[in-house]
Amino acid sequence: MGRIVSAEEIARPFRDEVRETARTLGAAIMLRGILASERRASEVYAQYTANGCADVGMSFELVKVPKLAVEEELARANDDAKVHGVIVYYPIFGPERDRTLQDEVKLEKDVEGLNSAWAYRLYHDQRFLDAGATRKAVLPCTALAVVKTLETLAVYRAGAPVGEQLRGKTACVFNRSEVVGRPLAAMLAHDGARVLSFDLDGLVVFEGKEAREAALTRAEALSQSDVVVTGVPSPDFVPVRAREIKPDSVCINISTYKNVDDDVVERASAFLPRVGPITVAMLLRNTLRLYENFHVGGKP
Amino acid sequence: MGRIVSAEEIARPFRDEVRETARTLGAAIMLRGILASERRASEVYAQYTANGCADVGMSFELVKVPKLAVEEELARANDDAKVHGVIVYYPIFGPERDRTLQDEVKLEKDVEGLNSAWAYRLYHDQRFLDAGATRKAVLPCTALAVVKTLETLAVYRAGAPVGEQLRGKTACVFNRSEVVGRPLAAMLAHDGARVLSFDLDGLVVFEGKEAREAALTRAEALSQSDVVVTGVPSPDFVPVRAREIKPDSVCINISTYKNVDDDVVERASAFLPRVGPITVAMLLRNTLRLYENFHVGGKP
Repeated sequence: MGRIVSAEEIARPFRDEVRETARTLGAAIMLRGILASERRASEVYAQYTANGCADVGMSFELVKVPKLAVEEELARANDDAKVHGVIVYYPIFGPERDRTLQDEVKLEKDVEGLNSAWAYRLYHDQRFLDAGATRKAVLPCTALAVVKTLETLAVYRAGAPVGEQLRGKTACVFNRSEVVGRPLAAMLAHDGARVLSFDLDGLVVFEGKEAREAALTRAEALSQSDVVVTGVPSPDFVPVRAREIKPDSVCINISTYKNVDDDVVERASAFLPRVGPITVAMLLRNTLRLYENFHVGGKP
Repeated sequence: MGRIVSAEEIARPFRDEVRETARTLGAAIMLRGILASERRASEVYAQYTANGCADVGMSFELVKVPKLAVEEELARANDDAKVHGVIVYYPIFGPERDRTLQDEVKLEKDVEGLNSAWAYRLYHDQRFLDAGATRKAVLPCTALAVVKTLETLAVYRAGAPVGEQLRGKTACVFNRSEVVGRPLAAMLAHDGARVLSFDLDGLVVFEGKEAREAALTRAEALSQSDVVVTGVPSPDFVPVRAREIKPDSVCINISTYKNVDDDVVERASAFLPRVGPITVAMLLRNTLRLYENFHVGGKP
């Protein structure tokens, strides 16, 4: 019998670390949020951001604007020297146009790591911004939350070299969006895992920097996966059940829908039913990282 | 009674100009095409590209790859010093992921002008790459084809200053995708027009750099539009008819579906039923422009 893992518990040490580092730096870090959506989920995420910032001693300013004013507001935040990080709450227009918006967030302020310049580094496994490897890249918050959860749960082998920490492990990820599923699949593959990535277009297997189509069924994939991550934004996805999974696997649900049945703990070693608080911790961590990369010690 | 305009006729002088300029430069210009889709429309576009290049004296190399090899092939084209321009034939994965791919095309080789750095310049009406205004920006081919058609048909006022050539005109555009409709709406608005932009999410009015939601019906919009552009990728769109449009307007269909009934010529001054050959001419023009911007006279 495994355990249900608390997201707050996983998030806590990361928040503590951000708070402590920000205090040591003596930094007055300012995050600007832009809310142009009336979706309840976006408002909740904005509220969590505010709480998270207060908890680690960062300032947070939330600006609410109509949809069509979002680009202008974003340009203002990009240009405002007292703003160190910018988060835009998606979805606003839909995946295609939101992608353009994500690209308009200045690299130096992109706490979500969704800008195409960050995405390029992610997909090409470039972990630093500079050749000297002093400035670490920023990664998308939810995907990073999954990685940090797997580190905390010791699925990552702590002593192994970078790129080898998941060697021999198989991970199954349901979702291949540009915001969550594909970044996550790439990150896990770059860390050594074989990743079975499912979405409506079928299965893609990621290994290292390679990707190929394959024809495994859900049942075959789940039965051989050490890690299962579900991120299907739909109530129609049939929740993953205990009988489908590999014994002692780790299950993580990142969807706002219940993609995993609680009975998985009968077989899994651990089940994380929601990732939100960890995502917020990663957002704060990214904000601090951008501050360190671009505002400390006269770095260019 | 208006006339049905031939796309080949509009395209010809632009092709002639590209051919002549390339000849004068003595340039051996090379365009690389990447075909990772089995859609018939993409294969046809690739064939048109090959014919267009042959016609203006450019080299064209077409590489066919499986979907999942497209990023790698693109990286190769980006890095290949003998390649001056790269065109990827979309759609491949779908709008969201294709957007990421569009961003991976190197700015200096992006003949489609879909890269986020080009898109940023377009939406912010920055018409040059440099402060000295020597290197003109690249614009998306189909939207540019519409603009050049309107110039050819003297809808643009030739003598007027930049930004004023469509002053007083109203244009109605059905399609607000990131690839065609929104770039076009922005370009027409930056040139002085009031643009009524329709898509499934409703109507947005573009004027100058402003955009706002509005509640005009299709009938109201069409009856007051001097220019009608249809780009709905669906057979379900009810074709625009003569009785709906303003007398002496210009109608342009950029969809592969028949979004406009031939009867519009009873009332329109001109009707362009397809834009493909002009789009290809703009692709050749963009290829030449990138060559001039980045490969002539030691420009950095």
